[in-house]
Amino acid sequence: MRRSALGPGGEFDVIRRILGAQVDASTRPEILVGPGDDCAVVRAGPLALTIDLAVEDVHFRRSWLGGREIGYRCATAALSDLAAMAAKPIGVLVSIAVPAGAATLAEEIAAGVAEAAAACDAVVLGGDLSGSPGPIVVDVAAAGEAVDPVTRAGARAGDELWVTGRLGGAAVAVAAWNAGQPLPDGARAAFVRPVARTAEARWLAESGALHAAIDLSDGLAADAAHLAAASGVAIVLDLPLVPAHAAVRTFAQDADRAAALVLGGGDDYELCIAAAPDALPPLVARFEQRFGVPLTRIGRVAAGAGVSGIGADGVRAPLAPRGYSHFGRNDA
Amino acid sequence: MRRSALGPGGEFDVIRRILGAQVDASTRPEILVGPGDDCAVVRAGPLALTIDLAVEDVHFRRSWLGGREIGYRCATAALSDLAAMAAKPIGVLVSIAVPAGAATLAEEIAAGVAEAAAACDAVVLGGDLSGSPGPIVVDVAAAGEAVDPVTRAGARAGDELWVTGRLGGAAVAVAAWNAGQPLPDGARAAFVRPVARTAEARWLAESGALHAAIDLSDGLAADAAHLAAASGVAIVLDLPLVPAHAAVRTFAQDADRAAALVLGGGDDYELCIAAAPDALPPLVARFEQRFGVPLTRIGRVAAGAGVSGIGADGVRAPLAPRGYSHFGRNDA
Repeated sequence: MRRSALGPGGEFDVIRRILGAQVDASTRPEILVGPGDDCAVVRAGPLALTIDLAVEDVHFRRSWLGGREIGYRCATAALSDLAAMAAKPIGVLVSIAVPAGAATLAEEIAAGVAEAAAACDAVVLGGDLSGSPGPIVVDVAAAGEAVDPVTRAGARAGDELWVTGRLGGAAVAVAAWNAGQPLPDGARAAFVRPVARTAEARWLAESGALHAAIDLSDGLAADAAHLAAASGVAIVLDLPLVPAHAAVRTFAQDADRAAALVLGGGDDYELCIAAAPDALPPLVARFEQRFGVPLTRIGRVAAGAGVSGIGADGVRAPLAPRGYSHFGRNDA
Repeated sequence: MRRSALGPGGEFDVIRRILGAQVDASTRPEILVGPGDDCAVVRAGPLALTIDLAVEDVHFRRSWLGGREIGYRCATAALSDLAAMAAKPIGVLVSIAVPAGAATLAEEIAAGVAEAAAACDAVVLGGDLSGSPGPIVVDVAAAGEAVDPVTRAGARAGDELWVTGRLGGAAVAVAAWNAGQPLPDGARAAFVRPVARTAEARWLAESGALHAAIDLSDGLAADAAHLAAASGVAIVLDLPLVPAHAAVRTFAQDADRAAALVLGGGDDYELCIAAAPDALPPLVARFEQRFGVPLTRIGRVAAGAGVSGIGADGVRAPLAPRGYSHFGRNDA
């Protein structure tokens, strides 16, 4: 790998500090040209590419997150998209806009991006910096090798639907912050330090059992609807099986509110997976031991369209998407 | 290529309209998974990756540009980075943030991004949309195949320095807008419709003569300094040879102001190239006939460091970087 020296200029000092803080890319044979040139150049098999934007007061508030946490969270959102394809992360590019005079904040954000990348064995390949006359903006593009990509489109009638981890913790944090209430244990961490399930996805993909996957950024109900639409199938959730984050039980006053947080709360970045029937049960114990998070069957794939849920009373009803929509009504 | 169907939701309606308007990616064998899934997946040789951020009232004003022009210009900035590596563009990912209720503006921006991509035979591979509590934000990541990437680091003492096109036109537009003066002919087009020199770069790279390249986004003086630093060489500009945009001659009151616009004005997106001595002169006529823009020798590469300029009086003096710095003083 070559790393280009940078000319003089304040912006480049910031970039230099950012690049100096990250994992040494020179040890990585897949990186032909590293940060600092017009482009980075990577050599890989098929490459999965995604981009994820976070805007202050839309995706986060400065009173909720420090600079490093802002960067960590936004990069994890992009890396989570790689996980949803079972791709092996290689690197990220990050654009950061901060108010004039806030170069230190930009550095903190970049350090958080680099930390999230390193957590997935990836590096920062480059970036762009700007002043902002308004909100902090962080936009992360992520690239990873996807030799055998798992898409949203491969779910088949008869498949089982699974989810990693427990849902609703990040939504509890947002709801408590917005209500001015104290945060239950674990809620802040769920929002601030989500985990991109890249290792989990690749381990599961190697089993050959994964037919389709999506990461839960908009909330289970909305993301299951995307999976169903992409695959041309119906999804039937067994609602009592959907694993709730412990903070949901502490925070929610009643079952309806708990369901709204678990089904409609975005930002969990867990994976929702359609797998061949009976393929995952033999793997659950090893998965949970290896990764320390539950892997839970939450429903099934059927012929048809849309998402429905079967409640504790055994009644099946259509599930309205409750995901966060920046341009529409927010049902969550 | 597979294109995933998208579930319901207002944000997805916008994405659908954007994707429907672009070049059909299904005819491109290098695109394994197209827009609409968690990631796009492309298959290529070594892949050049870059990202370029544009923020309203930092990089452009709404009174200067329409939505489509905003998107076109930002995408061209990223595609220009691919040109600077002599990479073959494949696709772009775009993140767009606009004020609430401005979904039509987001669509116009995305249409401009798609138009710029199509101009380089690339497609829109995906994107992200958000509301913004403040400025319009457009961030474009671009990917292109770079089998034999031309970096900033390959210039050698003895090389000739060349530039495509004419410089300073975009800087005249910004200066005239800021001064409330009428724009000279061609200045608006230079700012609004820059051309990513991807075809030009690949044609020149095939000659084998290119040792190093950089695109002029910060201005010739600043970008030449980056090239010099990356290559560990000095650059000596023959200032009377640097080709000025016609609008500079109309607009500038004196030679100093003209020099500031030509050497310090960013946003031209022309290429500055270090080439083997005597390699390009035999190609100039064919280049100019094929691409309709001049290819001009503007100086040479020498042992040492930094950038200096030889004026019409034959006196050589160091050239201060005049490029735009978002975090520093702007000397332009």
